[in-house]
Order: sequence, then C-alpha cells, then structure tokens
Amino acid sequence: MGNSFGTLFRISTWGESHGGGIGVVIDGCPPRLPITVEEIQFELDRRRPGQSDITTPRKESDTATIVSGVFEGQSLGTPIGIYVPNGDHRPSAYTEMKDKFRPSHADFTYQAKFGIRNHEGGGRSSARETIGRVAAGAVAKKILKLAGDIDVRAYITRVHDIEMPASSVFPTLEQVEASPVRCPHPATAEKMIERIKAVRKDGDSVGGIIECRVRNLPVGLGVPVFDRLEADLAKAMLSIPATKGFEIGSGFSGSVQLGSEHNDIFINKDGKIGTETNRSGGVQGGISNGEELIFRIAFKPTATLIQNQRTVDTDGNETELMGRGRHDPCVVPRAVPIVESMAALVLVDHWMRHQAHCQSFDFGGK
Amino acid sequence: MGNSFGTLFRISTWGESHGGGIGVVIDGCPPRLPITVEEIQFELDRRRPGQSDITTPRKESDTATIVSGVFEGQSLGTPIGIYVPNGDHRPSAYTEMKDKFRPSHADFTYQAKFGIRNHEGGGRSSARETIGRVAAGAVAKKILKLAGDIDVRAYITRVHDIEMPASSVFPTLEQVEASPVRCPHPATAEKMIERIKAVRKDGDSVGGIIECRVRNLPVGLGVPVFDRLEADLAKAMLSIPATKGFEIGSGFSGSVQLGSEHNDIFINKDGKIGTETNRSGGVQGGISNGEELIFRIAFKPTATLIQNQRTVDTDGNETELMGRGRHDPCVVPRAVPIVESMAALVLVDHWMRHQAHCQSFDFGGK
Amino acid sequence: MGNSFGTLFRISTWGESHGGGIGVVIDGCPPRLPITVEEIQFELDRRRPGQSDITTPRKESDTATIVSGVFEGQSLGTPIGIYVPNGDHRPSAYTEMKDKFRPSHADFTYQAKFGIRNHEGGGRSSARETIGRVAAGAVAKKILKLAGDIDVRAYITRVHDIEMPASSVFPTLEQVEASPVRCPHPATAEKMIERIKAVRKDGDSVGGIIECRVRNLPVGLGVPVFDRLEADLAKAMLSIPATKGFEIGSGFSGSVQLGSEHNDIFINKDGKIGTETNRSGGVQGGISNGEELIFRIAFKPTATLIQNQRTVDTDGNETELMGRGRHDPCVVPRAVPIVESMAALVLVDHWMRHQAHCQSFDFGGK
Amino acid sequence: MGNSFGTLFRISTWGESHGGGIGVVIDGCPPRLPITVEEIQFELDRRRPGQSDITTPRKESDTATIVSGVFEGQSLGTPIGIYVPNGDHRPSAYTEMKDKFRPSHADFTYQAKFGIRNHEGGGRSSARETIGRVAAGAVAKKILKLAGDIDVRAYITRVHDIEMPASSVFPTLEQVEASPVRCPHPATAEKMIERIKAVRKDGDSVGGIIECRVRNLPVGLGVPVFDRLEADLAKAMLSIPATKGFEIGSGFSGSVQLGSEHNDIFINKDGKIGTETNRSGGVQGGISNGEELIFRIAFKPTATLIQNQRTVDTDGNETELMGRGRHDPCVVPRAVPIVESMAALVLVDHWMRHQAHCQSFDFGGK
Repeated sequence: MGNSFGTLFRISTWGESHGGGIGVVIDGCPPRLPITVEEIQFELDRRRPGQSDITTPRKESDTATIVSGVFEGQSLGTPIGIYVPNGDHRPSAYTEMKDKFRPSHADFTYQAKFGIRNHEGGGRSSARETIGRVAAGAVAKKILKLAGDIDVRAYITRVHDIEMPASSVFPTLEQVEASPVRCPHPATAEKMIERIKAVRKDGDSVGGIIECRVRNLPVGLGVPVFDRLEADLAKAMLSIPATKGFEIGSGFSGSVQLGSEHNDIFINKDGKIGTETNRSGGVQGGISNGEELIFRIAFKPTATLIQNQRTVDTDGNETELMGRGRHDPCVVPRAVPIVESMAALVLVDHWMRHQAHCQSFDFGGK
Repeated sequence: MGNSFGTLFRISTWGESHGGGIGVVIDGCPPRLPITVEEIQFELDRRRPGQSDITTPRKESDTATIVSGVFEGQSLGTPIGIYVPNGDHRPSAYTEMKDKFRPSHADFTYQAKFGIRNHEGGGRSSARETIGRVAAGAVAKKILKLAGDIDVRAYITRVHDIEMPASSVFPTLEQVEASPVRCPHPATAEKMIERIKAVRKDGDSVGGIIECRVRNLPVGLGVPVFDRLEADLAKAMLSIPATKGFEIGSGFSGSVQLGSEHNDIFINKDGKIGTETNRSGGVQGGISNGEELIFRIAFKPTATLIQNQRTVDTDGNETELMGRGRHDPCVVPRAVPIVESMAALVLVDHWMRHQAHCQSFDFGGK
Repeated sequence: MGNSFGTLFRISTWGESHGGGIGVVIDGCPPRLPITVEEIQFELDRRRPGQSDITTPRKESDTATIVSGVFEGQSLGTPIGIYVPNGDHRPSAYTEMKDKFRPSHADFTYQAKFGIRNHEGGGRSSARETIGRVAAGAVAKKILKLAGDIDVRAYITRVHDIEMPASSVFPTLEQVEASPVRCPHPATAEKMIERIKAVRKDGDSVGGIIECRVRNLPVGLGVPVFDRLEADLAKAMLSIPATKGFEIGSGFSGSVQLGSEHNDIFINKDGKIGTETNRSGGVQGGISNGEELIFRIAFKPTATLIQNQRTVDTDGNETELMGRGRHDPCVVPRAVPIVESMAALVLVDHWMRHQAHCQSFDFGGK
Repeated sequence: MGNSFGTLFRISTWGESHGGGIGVVIDGCPPRLPITVEEIQFELDRRRPGQSDITTPRKESDTATIVSGVFEGQSLGTPIGIYVPNGDHRPSAYTEMKDKFRPSHADFTYQAKFGIRNHEGGGRSSARETIGRVAAGAVAKKILKLAGDIDVRAYITRVHDIEMPASSVFPTLEQVEASPVRCPHPATAEKMIERIKAVRKDGDSVGGIIECRVRNLPVGLGVPVFDRLEADLAKAMLSIPATKGFEIGSGFSGSVQLGSEHNDIFINKDGKIGTETNRSGGVQGGISNGEELIFRIAFKPTATLIQNQRTVDTDGNETELMGRGRHDPCVVPRAVPIVESMAALVLVDHWMRHQAHCQSFDFGGK
C-alpha cells in the first residue's frame, strides 16, 4: 500500500538510497512485448546523476538487470522484475542527519510517522526511489510506441524565473536532449544553465516547470467519475518528489477566461471529430478526446542547500545544520524522464482499462 | 472501477442526472459514529442549485435518505447507503443534445468511449453526480471533527480576475457562508457577485479558484511513495468536474523562489516541532507535518453558454447549437462543499491507513 | 472494504435485513448490454423466501428497481444501481436477540467486532444480504450468455445424507427448477424434500452440497499466481453465508488417487486440444483449459432451530434461548442462484482481466 | 494484478524457475518489527527441495538476501525486498517440454493464455514461485508471534489413503518437524514415508491433506460480506499450486449433521464468551470468534511422473512424453510452510484491517 501504482499495469517499487539496491516489479505487462535491458538502461541514464556539469557530480552507474518476466527478448506476461544495485555508499556524508532534521526534507515526517528512519541518507524519500519508476516507464513507453505510435514528451519550460517562449510545436527527443537542461529552446536553455551555475556557486537551489505532451493518443481513455485521466495524471505527477502543482490544458490561467473564450469548438478534421483549440488539454469529462494531451508540473527548489540553516534536532532543540555533499542545485532536468515515465504508466493502464471495460464483449447482433 | 474512491474509507457513487436518482455507498465507515440525516442534508443544501440568485434557478430539493448502515443514530460499521431521488425532470430542454455535441462538455467523449450515452442530460458527467460525494463528505467531516477537532474549510479566492487579498487567517464557516459566492472577504465577495451577474446577462460564464485549509491535522498522514498525501489530494480535486489545476503550499509560485527563500525552517513551538513558514503547505515527503494543510484548485468557466456556438453533430457534420436551459454562470461557489468533501474523504482514509500501518502492533518490549 | 467484490466487474452491496432496503452497485459493466429489470427479477424470485412449502413461509416480494446505469434497455457503461426495499418488518420476532447470542449465528462476532449491531434481525449477516449478489449475478449471467453462450448451472447433489447418483450430464435449467429442492434427479429430489419436511417437524435443520458447472468457457481465464481462477472461485463461494468448504474437480477425493490415475491426458478433440478426463475440473495452473468447469460447495445446517438452546447473554451469563420465527430448515435450495451468481461474477471479471492483459495490444509485426 | 496478495499487508512476488531469481516485495509491513534474514532463511529451508530422502534430490540452496526495508535489524515501514537467486540451472532436462505439453501441468494453459512461455522449466507455474510467499510468511508469522503470541501450525494428516488419527491437540513445531513427512503422529508418519518411497519406485506420485490451526487469535478478524476470514483463507489456500479443496471447521462432513448436532453452544469460559464445541472452526459470520482456527487443504498427486504418458504437442498432434528429472513424488510435506505462510499473511492483513476499521477512532465521550 503506497508503493504500488496502477490498476492493471501495476508497478511496485522498493529500495532505499542506502542499502542493497532499488527495484521495481511490473505486474500485468502484456505478453510478447519485445523489450531489452538496453531500452530500460537508456532511460535510466537520462535520470541518473552525473550526466552533465549542471547536475550533482555524484557518480551512480545505476545499472539495471531484468531478473524475471522476459524470455528470449519478449515479455512473458508474468511479473517483470528489474533490479539496480546501490553503489557509491558514503554514509559519513550524512552523519549529522542522524540527530538533526534537514529543513523541507522528509527526515522529520518519516521519523514521526514510522518512529524509525534510515538516517544514512534520504532512505525511501531519496530521489533514487524514482529509478524503479523510470525503469517501468521505459517499458510503458515502448508499449505506447508499438501500440499506437504514441509519443510522450516532457521538457523544461521554466527554471527559476527564466521561461521559454510559448510554442505549440511538439519537440523531438533530440531537441529536448540537445541541452543538459532539457529545454528544447536553445537560447533559453543557455540562460537556464547559467542561472543554475550561478545559484550553485551560492550553495543555493532553484526549481522550475516541466511541460509534458502526448500525441496520437486514442479517444476514450479515462474512467469517470474518480479515475478521470487528468485525476490519475495529477496523482502520478504529485507523487514525484519536489512537486508542488499540476495543471492540464488552460490550467490556472483558464480560470481567468470567459466561457466564450475558453470553450473548444468541435470541428471536422478530415473526417474525424476534433477541436479547433485545445484549452481542454486533450481531456473532456475525464476522457481523452483525441487531441494532444498537455499538462505542466511545478517543482520547488531543491531542499538541500550548501549553506548553514537553522533547524531542530530529534529532541526538538533548536540548532544549526551545515549542508554538504554532492547534490543537485536543480533537480528539474533529471525529472524529465520521471515525468514521462509516470505519464506513460497512467496511459498504458488506462488503455488496458478501456479495453477491458468497453472492448471485451460484442453484444452486437444479439 | 472508476466510480469508487478511497482505500479503507471507500465510497462508491452511482446515478445520472436523469433517471431514478443519485446515491453513494460508504464502505469502511468506523462503527459507533453518531450521524444523522440532517448533518448530511446540511451539506447537500450547500451544494444544491437554486440556493441564491447567482446560481441556476433550477429547483432541486436533493433530499437524502439513509437506507442502510446506521442504527439508532450510530453507524454500524457496515456499508452506509444514501439515496437521493431525482426530480424536476425536463428532458425536452435537452432535445438538441441527442444529435449535437456541446462544446467543452463530455457528450462527445462519453459517446466515443461507451458507444452510448443518456442524451437527456449530462448523465453521469452532470454535476449532479457530486451529490454522492457531498453526502459521504458530510460523514467524513463528522469523523474528523469528533476524532481530532479537525476543520476542513474551503472558500473562493478568485472569480474570473477578481481576487481576494492574501490572508493567513483560517476563516470560519460563518464567514464563508455569509455571501452566496463563498468568499470570506466581504468587499471582494460583492465584486465577485457583480461580475457573475454581469456575465450571466451576456449568456457567458466564468471560473475561479478555491482554496482549502485543514487545521489540527496530526503528523504522519500520507503514504510514500505513490500515495503521498498531496498526490491523493491532487487526484481527489482533479476528479471534480471543471477542474484544471491543483497546487499545494507555494505551488506554481514556489518554482520561482530560491531554495534559501523557500525552505521551511524547523522550530520548537511550545515543545512541539513545527515550521516557521509553511511553503510546504503542511506536507513534507508526502506526509503531513502538523502544520496547516493548504492547497488551491483552478476551475474553468462553465462550458454551458446561453449563446450560439459552432459544433458538430454525431455524424461529424459542422453545425450550430443554441444553449438554453437553467445553468450556472459560475459553478465555483457550489463546488466549495465538494472540495471540502473530497479533502475530508482523503484525510479519513489516510488516518485509517496510518493507524493500520503504524499503530496496529506494539513490538515494544519484545 | 469487504463489501465489494471483483476487480474490473466490481459489485458493492449494502443493506441490512431490517431498515430501508438492500442494494447493489455494479461498477465496470460493459456498455450496450441489453438488460431488463425482468431478467434481474427472475433470478431474485429464485432466491426469495416463500417460493415453496419447503422454504420459510416468510413473504418477501423482493422487488427490484434499476435506479441508474441503464438507458433505453441498454447499459450505459456507468454504475448500475439496483434497489430492493425491505418489507415484512417484524422486529418483535427478534426481541430476545437483543440480549442473547444465537448459537452459530453472527450475533456475538458482530457485537464483538463492531461494538454495536442491529439486533432487530440478522442485520448485515442475514441471508437478505445476498439479494444484491443475485441481482448483479443476473447481469453477469446475461453477459456470459451473450458473449459466448456460456452457461453457469448450479444444483443440489446432497441434502443431509441423501445424495444423488453421480452424473456427467450438464442439467438443464428446467431439470433443476423442476423440483423446489433444485436437485435435477427426480427420485432423489423427492427423498430430499421428505427429509427436509421431517427435520422441520422437529424444529431441526440440515445442510447439503451444491455442485456448479460452467460450459463453453474459453481457454485462458485466471491470473496466476494469486488470482488463479479456482482461488477466486473459492473466495467467492466461501463468502456465501453458511458455507464450510469448496472443492474443484477431483477435490478432496483427488488426494487419495495416484498421479497416474489422476492426470488428465491431453488429446486432440476435433482439432482442439482437450483432456480425456476432467479431474482438473476445467482449470490447470490456475487458468481455464476449455473443459467444463466443475466445483462443489458444502453448506452447514441452518443455525436457527425452533428448539430450546443453551447460550450466553451479552454480559456473558449462561442462559437459554427458544428459537422462533419463520426460518428455513434447509437454505441450500435457495442458495443455488447465489452460487451461480458468484460464479458468474468471477467469470465476467476474469474475462475482462484476460482481455485487458493479453488482448489489449498487438505487437505482432513490429 | 494477480501476483500481489493482501490489502494492507501486501506482497508482490516475481520470478520464474529458470532465470535470474525469485523475490518478493512486502508493502505495508509495520515499522520497528525486529526481523533478521536468519528468521526468513529458517522458513525457506523448510520449503526447499533436497531436505530429506523423500523429497526431490534437486539441490537448491535458496539463499535469501534482504535488499530493502530493514535497517539495523528493524523494519522501516517501507517496502521490504527479498531476493533469492536461481541456481542449478539444467534446461536440458526440459528439452522435450518445448514442444510437448505435460499432462495436468500448466504448460498448455500458459501457452494458450499468454501466447508464449518459458519452456526451460515450469516458469512462473513452478513451485519455486512459492519462495516469495514463504519469505513473506516468515515476516508475517513473526508479527503474529510478537503481537499476540499467535501460533500458526500446519501439518500433514493424510498422504494418499494413510490418515493420522483425529486429535484435538495443537502440535508443537518440534512434533511436526520430527519427521520429514511433517505428520505429528510418529506411527502414521512412518507409514506415510514408506508409501511415498514405494510410489517413487514406480515413478508415480501421491497427494494428501494438510490441516492448519491457529491459536490465540483475537475475536473480530474478518470483514463481511465478501472478505470473510474463511473466504480470504480459501482464496489463499487455493492459490497454492496443486490444491483442489478447502474446508473450515466441520467442512464437508458438517453437511451431513443436523443443526442440533452442529451448532456450537456459547458458554462462559473463565469470564470470556466461548463455544463448547468448535464445528465453526473459529469463524462465525465471517469473523473470528476467539476459538482455535482450524481448516484443511486437499492436494492432488504431483503431476510429474517418471513414466511414459500420452499427450499432445504444441500443434495438437497426439504423442508421448517420458517424464524424467528430479521431482517430488509427494509435494505435500514441503507445502506445510507454504500453508502456514499464506495463513499468516491473511491474518496479519485482517488484523491491520480490523485495527483500521474498528479501532482508528474513539467517538466515545462525544
């Protein structure tokens, strides 16, 4: 409970930042999916630390092994187990954390909830936890691609107060990956990198916004009233560490429009029903309408600072904590594959749910 | 699947806008809760149409009956069934809907997903569906109140572009209910009402923002990594019709702060560990930290307009549709009890989950 | 939790024997299923008391209303709500039950678990609870019939120690319904009826065994390792009041055979792979193999006796209780439609799960 | 879906007989449970092949590693990952299986369901799959022992037609483990061993019956109407490979008793309400009543024979298959720890559910 996600395509993740390793079990993967460990590793490499000079210099190879569920290059339909051993274990970097709570981290709430925590690192609240999500997301993205040429593309639109110009173009993976900051607008990407470097020099941190688009999605995904597509996406995104907000389509800015400005007019697009505009963000009444799915997620600045901060110790005494270690001044670029993964997990799950609910039976001529 | 919400305190809603009625089953309600039909009716009356001159003049009495699970004023621990018959059935108002899809409504996606829809009204996508949520929410709010004097309070902070001044005060229910627009700042409430009336005159509509706060919540609610408290709240809120966004604590604006500005410093508050500021919004690492829970939801303008709009018919031919009927120019005020209900459902569920996970056993002296 | 059954075709039942009524919500019913209230009422009439002179003379009309989810004779894909009001309320018949626990009933355990119970009758532990199951089962049986001409047939093979001769014939519904005892072997049925009447004269009761067969089931239903078809059937059957055992295929007697006697040899049956014998009962490795599904359920004798019995009162003092009222000396005949319903619910659910898991995607040529 | 079990104390297992390994993730384990890898290994050693001269001579060390969720000897409340690598890989022993379906095995149904199978061994249908269950069961049994001195004890009462005398004594673990056949009645155990050896000489196999008892269980576990304690136990037991039946208390034999013989009279046992007899098997109305829980499971004879058997190949052609390899002539002794594990998983889960449902809140003085 709490470490599984999805209904039919269901993942269960496990593992702390320090300890044996991190892993995921995918239960419900359709059989006969061609999948290789290289495809999984490709996505893990996008997520791991030490990719570029704007992320943490921590070296983590994050090498995945498929330990079950795949046979001769194809999924068996049985649970796919993926295992990534931990390495680079330096508990000494965390000595002070045993007795002091880091501000805006999960140390205090984990201790209060469970009465125990692995104080050698972030434990389960560490971003390492997301390895399992990205590994499973690689499988989900492969399914979407094969099943319907569906692309899930996330990228950064803002770092701190540096925002890329609005664009209706669906960026290519190459455009996103062209810069380590994963903003497909090169000039803005440059400025974002400068800002991250400047902030790092001060031992400070910044957050930002990720936008995610999905194209070629069929009509009909999403299950009202509670499992609306946007509701499940919102949960998926807010389950990612450091997120503070989610919006779909017009989002918060939609609330300052008149209905006559906001409504998406239905038109006939080459024989298919579509909408002239896409303020709905690809979802109406909780169900995909065939337009591009588009949503955004807000990330707070990294809580770890290389600065002195006031805090309390585990007995509640006020004290100070000097941040050290090798952390990211901005986690948002590395969150891009996580966002894509969570989106893909939601979409595969809803595809399967739709199939089960609406396509299992043919009562046609009877 | 899709019409149930919650894990341990689990509701299942049913019913369309036109047909027999609307109802909810609450499974997992703790036994011996004192609860009356009047307490449920009180919340339904806050939700129903026709409350004031800024909502739809449609008359719906929405009278609830408890059909199971309560005996001599107390819950039995068995499923609580609540039933609200439909009335005021005027299918003729919807004749055109049989053949034309209303823009930014769910007519098209329901038809595409299910291959059938109740074209006599919004069916399951109608706001009437939320009756079941509000009835169950009344029970959940009662539990929170009795269990820990926990208050869940939602109110409007913005209608269209009219926004109330920022305030850190937890408003009383009386302050919220003082105006039909449910904004606790009287001067702003006046302006909001004027705006709604003006927009209605044009057959147009507006959206807005609801803020929700919860006080006296214990530390420890929320289950990482997927069932974080904010993730489940985000899903709950985005499952409400007409919502486009969710943010907690600093939200989207938090992404333009530096880490050194954003971190919440831990302090000792009269012997208890707390935070000096609350940009986290009451949740850290997905778990409540004992501070006030605070989040906001964006609502789009009502899709129904009393205007002529372009659209397509069910065969995909482009046509026009003249809106008529008795709809709300702004649904946000009536959404206030829905937001509170969904929040309360999440919190009771997580309270029970926390109890089960962390308080079931005492391994203490062994 | 506890009052819902199924994963994709999911029912939630509510209602006590005394109070407003009994109902069920079916969530996940495929859209466009032709279904009428008469089809549901037909099955409810098979379940209700007062059908014949060997069941309780209690008159309960058990009239169902479909309150949502069906439009113009077809399912909408939204939750189907079915409501059966209670009637014939005679709480005076239960006065003593307020203070004394009936032996082998659920009075004591409900009181101990919940700290409260509706002492005006069996409450939620009453057989009236099964009304919701049978109503939902009628829908499930209709789906199976239309989808694959699948028949689910239950019947009594034993009452007390009177057992019908072994038969490999799949009985018709008419053969089952020919006798009020629902044993398709007329001579045995006669003896069973005599035994039930004799036992009733003594104020005593008897149990028996129901066998259930399903024909035309496709290969592939069931999800190892935990949701094997027989595991879900076992749960379904043991969830029926008064059941004490479940066996599939060779069952308990299979454990006294040698492997060489027990194995089902694969043969080619007109081009399809089948088995020569069916000791497996239609399931191998938890998955249906295309042979007839066959299983049996043991029912204990009715706990209610029209005799004086020793017991304790709610304070634990030893006392006596004189049974009265209008109860069934043998509930097994009325349990036949309940068994069929639970079996049908499991099968529809697994059909949908199989479709989702193994038929959602075509990775074929890629 | 299908490879997870439990609601609040939830396990997900993964792994095939041939491939990387076998594992389990336990999600929802209460924090601060003292647990060591040795306690887990102890139970795995009871399950593994090669323990004695009546089981398969296959050597599998089945060495477990805890890869997450435990810190300094205590559970963290986060997912506990346990990993057991595969070894002794001899795919050549299975060459023929690639093209022929073994009778009464899962080869055919897996191939038919998934369109693919790992033909190098039993894959997911192999008994190796139960390693994950037993590892998780060791944790569950530890919880029950610490929480309430609850003992879960399974043992063999019958092998083929050799049955131990009825006994009301709760056997000790030492008595069960005294003989490799795990029957606590020494004289019968001897005969069972002789029978197994005789059958093995013929290349044949036998099944049997396991009885399981639980003592010190509190009143109140089980959730009507669907998640009755016996229903969840039945599912748990029928999910174990090679099982064909389940009965609780009087079981199938209860159906030949009169109600007046079968009812369990309530009495006062030193100030606590109990029953004079225990035909209910410790459960009434689906809820534990404080008496000893007692149930039995039927196992079919092992499907693998060292004999020539008729079968079909994957194209449906009739052919023959000569069994070889190192299989168990009777799997029932090794199933004893599996039965205990599944029972313990159900009981911990229901303990937590009961706590959540009935003990989360105190509405007492309000």
